[in-house]
Amino acid sequence: MKKTVYTEKWTDDVHLTIADVDHIHHEKTPFQTIDFYRSITLGIFFTLDGLMMANEKDEFIYHDMISHVPLAVNPTIRHVLIIGGGDGGTAREVARYQHIETIDMVEIDERVVRLCQDHLPQTAHALDTDPRIRLHFEDGLAFVNGAKAGRYDLILVDSTDPIGPGEGLFSHAFYQACYRALSDDGILINQHESPYFDKERREMVRAHEKINALFAISEVYQFHQPTYPSGHWLFGFASKRYHPINDHQPAKWETFNLHTRYYNSDLHKAAFMLPTYVKEALHNAR
Amino acid sequence: MKKTVYTEKWTDDVHLTIADVDHIHHEKTPFQTIDFYRSITLGIFFTLDGLMMANEKDEFIYHDMISHVPLAVNPTIRHVLIIGGGDGGTAREVARYQHIETIDMVEIDERVVRLCQDHLPQTAHALDTDPRIRLHFEDGLAFVNGAKAGRYDLILVDSTDPIGPGEGLFSHAFYQACYRALSDDGILINQHESPYFDKERREMVRAHEKINALFAISEVYQFHQPTYPSGHWLFGFASKRYHPINDHQPAKWETFNLHTRYYNSDLHKAAFMLPTYVKEALHNAR
Repeated sequence: MKKTVYTEKWTDDVHLTIADVDHIHHEKTPFQTIDFYRSITLGIFFTLDGLMMANEKDEFIYHDMISHVPLAVNPTIRHVLIIGGGDGGTAREVARYQHIETIDMVEIDERVVRLCQDHLPQTAHALDTDPRIRLHFEDGLAFVNGAKAGRYDLILVDSTDPIGPGEGLFSHAFYQACYRALSDDGILINQHESPYFDKERREMVRAHEKINALFAISEVYQFHQPTYPSGHWLFGFASKRYHPINDHQPAKWETFNLHTRYYNSDLHKAAFMLPTYVKEALHNAR
Repeated sequence: MKKTVYTEKWTDDVHLTIADVDHIHHEKTPFQTIDFYRSITLGIFFTLDGLMMANEKDEFIYHDMISHVPLAVNPTIRHVLIIGGGDGGTAREVARYQHIETIDMVEIDERVVRLCQDHLPQTAHALDTDPRIRLHFEDGLAFVNGAKAGRYDLILVDSTDPIGPGEGLFSHAFYQACYRALSDDGILINQHESPYFDKERREMVRAHEKINALFAISEVYQFHQPTYPSGHWLFGFASKRYHPINDHQPAKWETFNLHTRYYNSDLHKAAFMLPTYVKEALHNAR
């Protein structure tokens, strides 16, 4: 197979380049362009509209941090909604909790799921095997609007960046719909972009303004995601009741006896301790 | 000026590329090759033997984290030795503490200092203006071996990677010499590489093994450095007496009233809370 080079423009001039890749799939769907590549260091990875979504080497970081943080704050969560997350990695981590009863996963583009099942079973395997996971191939905002009020204990917004099909998942209407669909002690985790380069920092601030205006508790936590722009990435934690640090239940979480390669109980609190320039940017958003 | 492209191979196949740079200086010294570039997003940056050392956009992170962590553990530090650190950024941060009496800076390659004074005054300016900073252009190991036992309260090893002139600064003999040159409550901070890609992880483990064998207290802390390989970088904190968390003195540090853009008292403890895969790699080094 002909080797090619994958380049992602983190900014106009700062690029992540991955040399010697096999371009194993290319497809245009009604929603976006999907590409899969095989690389030496990162293993299989896929992109949507040319942006890195997940790769075999570092996907464990993102999927640990989106799922285990809320489950260590409310370890009795039973009903989970995942918006996006087509690679299945978020569902895979959530499905490790035996006490969780239902996992609804709403992905607008069925082709992302089917291609990940073919090419990236490391993330997608739980979608084939866990009967609690129900796949819904439809628009996330429409699905959440149609959900019963208070239906979910946890909503995980595992979205792309706020361009293309992911744009609606950063809207005020979407966060409002999530608020309604969450139980009184519900938790919303959202992909919160990055503080470092201008483009992602603007989206971080916009998302924070909107969520902060709706939820009693709205915090932000960070992690190291080497293949996302700058490697410094964030999730938002919003809740009507639970504070991610004051209500953290490490002893209970440890009884689940899950081995996690990135997340751990010490790192849980630490992830919310942000650099000063990030705190200042978020504070100005309030 | 002709525009060029700067590429740094983080691994054989994963590269950071900076497009549209002006190559403003190139020089071979007896020790290494020095290049300065001007870029759109990162501002001025320089490389040693082709590896990014510092740039105007993210140098504040590295220099915050190497200097303020130890000074918030022992706020009475008076005598500081900096090994390497030719760009002057570490000396600049240390010099913000008025109570510090002497700052010896040992840089093997005078040209690094002189070129940073010309091209990167943002980091180098304190070298010109602060009389407490004494520059020594000599080998770091030889200098530390020649220092009086117990001379320093703090040694900051602001080195390049363990190849080329930086190699000796990762040796057992060097760490042993630092131990001898430190006072009974002395602290050693060292550039501890990265846990993520194989090459830096091997060096992280090797450095940790050596320091851990010498010092009663040896911990590792992390930060986000977007332009270093993977963006996930570490410093080591070693001491004969002080534990970086148990002996942390945030109230005292706050009285210095220093505005720092990355470091803050909450982040201090949090930085020592490492991902599980990093803890496991370091534990295996013990």
